[in-house]
Amino acid sequence: MQLESRQLAHVLDVWPVARLATIGAGGAPHLVPIVFASIDDYLYSPIDAKPKGSADLQRLRNVAQDGRVCLLLDHYASQWRQLWWIRIDATAERVGRIGLTDAEFARATERLRHKYPQYRSIPLFRGEPQLLRIQPRAHTAWSAEPIEWEALR
Amino acid sequence: MQLESRQLAHVLDVWPVARLATIGAGGAPHLVPIVFASIDDYLYSPIDAKPKGSADLQRLRNVAQDGRVCLLLDHYASQWRQLWWIRIDATAERVGRIGLTDAEFARATERLRHKYPQYRSIPLFRGEPQLLRIQPRAHTAWSAEPIEWEALR
Repeated sequence: MQLESRQLAHVLDVWPVARLATIGAGGAPHLVPIVFASIDDYLYSPIDAKPKGSADLQRLRNVAQDGRVCLLLDHYASQWRQLWWIRIDATAERVGRIGLTDAEFARATERLRHKYPQYRSIPLFRGEPQLLRIQPRAHTAWSAEPIEWEALR
Repeated sequence: MQLESRQLAHVLDVWPVARLATIGAGGAPHLVPIVFASIDDYLYSPIDAKPKGSADLQRLRNVAQDGRVCLLLDHYASQWRQLWWIRIDATAERVGRIGLTDAEFARATERLRHKYPQYRSIPLFRGEPQLLRIQPRAHTAWSAEPIEWEALR
């Protein structure tokens, strides 16, 4: 199933978490949950100051080697009639103050702070700002029953 | 962070959903949410009768080509102190009545029906039984704050 552009944009605006698959060294898949904000044609996901092991930054090394990624936004519920998911095939690159214009950087950080009030108490970046900029290329959506995508909260 | 075997076994027993990354044709990653049951050294995930597009069975074609998969079990909450995830590197193969002994098949289906009462109203399989048998090879765990893994429900 394909969503209309405005439906997909809505879900990307309100849904707080995605799972990001990258390709690791040797070609095996690698997974990590991410937060992100959507602006125009891109999603921005910060390497924030939530505690992390260095291995968690594997995602950055992986996209430097192979920019092809897959994102899954989905809802699990014990009521299986409520299940849905959206899979997004995308490309990703690492950006920061380099790689973005000042205006793009400001807009991305503003949007992230607006979407996640948690960043009032947790720094949006640790040290030099780093983000993944993710460009969706195609999507597939599924729901167990018809749902109003634009009503998701 | 590494969990103790019994901690990992507990989470695999109680957590209802995982996100499964496989390698698609051409090497790009592919994601789908799965249900699964854990028995000894394996996880079993059925191709059940929840409505699916044929594209959803991509996971079977992918593991036939490359058995390397990655699983993510995780918890998102607006209280970021409650965040945790477990990433499992694994290999996967497609099995059914062929590829499993009668005892293994019976045990896998019993465990799935026990873990998911939803299968009282939704067939566990559609047509010929098909499951992914997933063998975890290594894991990495992370939590924002120390948590009692064996208390997860």
